Amino acid sequence: MNQSDTSQKPRVVIAGAGLAGCLLARLLGREGFEVLVVERREDPRTERLAGGRSINLAISARGIDALRAAGLEDELMKHAIPMTGRMIHSGSDNETFQSYSADSKKAINSVSRSELNLLLLDGADECDTVTFRFGQACTGVDPLAGSIGFRDSEGCETVEKADVIVGADGAYSAVRSALQRTPRFSFSQDFLDHGYKELSIPPAEKGPHAPWAIDPKALHIWPHGGSMMIALPNLDGSFTCTLFWPYEGFHSFESVKTDEVRRFFDEHYPDASELMPDLEDQYERNPVGPLGTMRCRPWNRNGVVLIGDSAHAIVPFYGQGANASFEDAKRLAEGLIADPDNPIDAIESYYVDRVDHGNAIADLALANFIEMRDHTGKTWFKWKKRLEHALHTTLGDRFLPLYEMVSFSTIPYDDARKRARWQWRLLLSFTGFGLITTSFIMLIVFIMLQER
Amino acid sequence: MNQSDTSQKPRVVIAGAGLAGCLLARLLGREGFEVLVVERREDPRTERLAGGRSINLAISARGIDALRAAGLEDELMKHAIPMTGRMIHSGSDNETFQSYSADSKKAINSVSRSELNLLLLDGADECDTVTFRFGQACTGVDPLAGSIGFRDSEGCETVEKADVIVGADGAYSAVRSALQRTPRFSFSQDFLDHGYKELSIPPAEKGPHAPWAIDPKALHIWPHGGSMMIALPNLDGSFTCTLFWPYEGFHSFESVKTDEVRRFFDEHYPDASELMPDLEDQYERNPVGPLGTMRCRPWNRNGVVLIGDSAHAIVPFYGQGANASFEDAKRLAEGLIADPDNPIDAIESYYVDRVDHGNAIADLALANFIEMRDHTGKTWFKWKKRLEHALHTTLGDRFLPLYEMVSFSTIPYDDARKRARWQWRLLLSFTGFGLITTSFIMLIVFIMLQER
Repeated sequence: MNQSDTSQKPRVVIAGAGLAGCLLARLLGREGFEVLVVERREDPRTERLAGGRSINLAISARGIDALRAAGLEDELMKHAIPMTGRMIHSGSDNETFQSYSADSKKAINSVSRSELNLLLLDGADECDTVTFRFGQACTGVDPLAGSIGFRDSEGCETVEKADVIVGADGAYSAVRSALQRTPRFSFSQDFLDHGYKELSIPPAEKGPHAPWAIDPKALHIWPHGGSMMIALPNLDGSFTCTLFWPYEGFHSFESVKTDEVRRFFDEHYPDASELMPDLEDQYERNPVGPLGTMRCRPWNRNGVVLIGDSAHAIVPFYGQGANASFEDAKRLAEGLIADPDNPIDAIESYYVDRVDHGNAIADLALANFIEMRDHTGKTWFKWKKRLEHALHTTLGDRFLPLYEMVSFSTIPYDDARKRARWQWRLLLSFTGFGLITTSFIMLIVFIMLQER
Repeated sequence: MNQSDTSQKPRVVIAGAGLAGCLLARLLGREGFEVLVVERREDPRTERLAGGRSINLAISARGIDALRAAGLEDELMKHAIPMTGRMIHSGSDNETFQSYSADSKKAINSVSRSELNLLLLDGADECDTVTFRFGQACTGVDPLAGSIGFRDSEGCETVEKADVIVGADGAYSAVRSALQRTPRFSFSQDFLDHGYKELSIPPAEKGPHAPWAIDPKALHIWPHGGSMMIALPNLDGSFTCTLFWPYEGFHSFESVKTDEVRRFFDEHYPDASELMPDLEDQYERNPVGPLGTMRCRPWNRNGVVLIGDSAHAIVPFYGQGANASFEDAKRLAEGLIADPDNPIDAIESYYVDRVDHGNAIADLALANFIEMRDHTGKTWFKWKKRLEHALHTTLGDRFLPLYEMVSFSTIPYDDARKRARWQWRLLLSFTGFGLITTSFIMLIVFIMLQER
């Protein structure tokens, strides 16, 4: 029965065994779809013990929702460190905690990217109908023929035919490059004048948060106007820090040389400097990566479709890159599962449904950079957050702060953005109306008192 | 003396013998720069008599200014048909003329693209230090080595070293493609849902405008909301018409089939339909081209620099594509001529100076599509234009309508856009202030009359 069931479903080839590709393979594989996942890199499981740099992500409601649909929520949460707010560092001993939600239990989750990838890879590999092939780079896609080519490290080329070809191959997607050569394909890549460099705070042997050197229940931010550093906790007690600095100018990667970095940190990140014994080594060794936004339109041509970073690579400042990719994978899988006889319609409906939300989270992520580096350190910002939380507590779901909607709900991104706008407009209108009415009543009362 | 003079100047290789490339070669060649222009296509002069489709451009103040600097203004004007305004066609016999300027003598000039290209090519070729090489496609650029590769039709490859390498190779620039592979190069291509198709109105044997079938002193527009047709006159008495229609939906290239096009034209473009005996043939034969905007940042890497469409391909609705390219060429030439010892500084200064203006005209051209197809047919638009002209006549240079600044001045595009904005804001503020003051005075007078 399983055999005949599979034969009716479209064959799916996924380029890329990253987060989105593996989740999609798992979701489709569980429904008996024949799925081939082809990955340019070697199998990360063969190097599982080799370790490597610890890069972490923040997984929030959307990611959890998608992994729940794949039956992997519990497994995910074993690897997660919940962070319930931001810890703002200003000066040497000045730490201020800002809760992410009025509900102090709501948290975003720090998860190691490589651990999460392995979890999803294992999850997909469990399905009988899912096959993986590693060390094969995509050489091209023919949307009309429904075929995709690959080349292994020895130069041997293969071509796969499929009903559905999914580009889940990241920001520099080879599948998207192929679509870019089709007529009227709109595309943009836009880089910030800022780059990023990772540093690490090692575990602490003692102290109130041991084995962590600082509070692991928060995402730490050192805001400095045009520049900032953040830190997310890892399960082993370390923190992964990321510098978001301009390439050039004051407080930049160019202006701060390795031999000045300790003095510079002592001045601008004094509490962090103390916790990084090998700061100079790390600063010298670790590369500076670019921060870019990539968008395209459409995300599909015939049976070829893009998900995750290949469709919308975004900057990391809202912690939503992986969450958005998981939402894509879930939405595409739902469409293909609901209508396996019409995969092209399912793909088109996925694209129409998701494209505005992909653009919205790209915009929101850019806007959040300004918020994190410029606003989080300001007193007015603290009061704005308090007001938002108070309104949310008082009015419940009638007032949902934007951050709440993005991180703690599955309200589609663009709907969340629109709703946040009209909520504030309504609030300002009410306030204005209230002020005018009060003034008017006071005037009437004043006139009446005068006339007595 | 000429010899030693040349040797001190940077060697320039220009990819592309189109409008911008030839003008730049002419401007630099006249100053003794050694310039090599390499073009993918064959020499158009060898096919000069072969004819071909007549595509025309609107050359206005900026283009004329740049060609004047190259000593080619008189030659240009010999090929130009001045158009002093728009002729709006609505219904079968309804023509309304809208002057472009309060000064009825100011005109934009319809010029054949191929004639203009030949004129510039001849102009550049006159210079002793300018060399042309045709039928050579650019294969790549190395900004660090300062080299550019070419391949001829027989597969023979050459590499040229130069101090300055100019990408003047159009919207699908190979030089820009090479820059796109350098780090943090921002790029976007964005296509409209509209395409274009060219048609032709043949010369008329008799009639008030003979040899033209309709008034050659105007740019003709048939506005239809989401779609439109325009027509520009040629020297031979013909008009080149361009349909700007959506690819899909109502009034689109997809929905209007060749066997229905006559009936469709009789209904929507009745006066034009009469003048096109071979409409069906042309509609069937001529392809639909895409309408895209391309932007990038930066326009330079070391000694490699982009000008014209390769830096900023724009939609044709403001008639500024060629004008903007000529401005680029003039600005770049001025910089290199002023400081021949520091070509990289000159290039950087050109980029910093021009990039905002390239983006501004890209935006203005997109906005003008809405104006041409949706607004020009409306009564309020006619009155807005009249008001603008009246204000300009009354206030002189203190009020310059946007169209006036873009088409009849060399005020940089972004400055023109900003100025247009604050002019209207100022006007609305004055009007608002006037209304409030008048109401207030009337109220006072009314109260005083009551109290008598």
